[in-house]
Amino acid sequence: MLPDNKTQWTEAEETIAKKALQTAYERETSALIAHIRDRASSISKLEDLWYLHDLLSTKRHEIDGKYAYNFPTLVFDFAALVKEGWLQLDELKELKPEIRSKISALTRI
Amino acid sequence: MLPDNKTQWTEAEETIAKKALQTAYERETSALIAHIRDRASSISKLEDLWYLHDLLSTKRHEIDGKYAYNFPTLVFDFAALVKEGWLQLDELKELKPEIRSKISALTRI
Repeated sequence: MLPDNKTQWTEAEETIAKKALQTAYERETSALIAHIRDRASSISKLEDLWYLHDLLSTKRHEIDGKYAYNFPTLVFDFAALVKEGWLQLDELKELKPEIRSKISALTRI
Repeated sequence: MLPDNKTQWTEAEETIAKKALQTAYERETSALIAHIRDRASSISKLEDLWYLHDLLSTKRHEIDGKYAYNFPTLVFDFAALVKEGWLQLDELKELKPEIRSKISALTRI
């Protein structure tokens, strides 16, 4: 199955997609900041510090990828965000049904 | 100038060197932990978080290198630790004079 390409999305849908992505981004990054602050406050050993470093390396890589607004992977990115709890499916209800169905189906994989 | 090699250090000096390295390691890593905890407590933006990540990447690389107890670079490593304030020259006073002189000279470069 080829992922959606740009021609399937109207300009209005692009706006909706960008807004949804921004919402999820703000939720995930706020949660990450809170988690790191909390975690950092209890660091007492160097291995805790390197654990924090590894966690930040992973999260930075993930966040850079997920929120890049990359059209060929957009339905997959939205499905991942829904699965991870950063977006609700009904926040994408203004997208056309076939796109929502694809996202919804991908969340069940 | 070739760096010191192992034959110039007595067993007693090796013990002194390892102890000094351990002392500096504990000082630097404790200071780093305190700095990161302090810095993390005031993070409010994602760019602050990535700054913290960059700082941890640099420090981890530096610390892994500096405290590796690598004989060919030991006088340079000690000179760096003295320059950075993690060791005092007089904490190396039990090393033989020619080694101390080299370390001392390197701290002035």
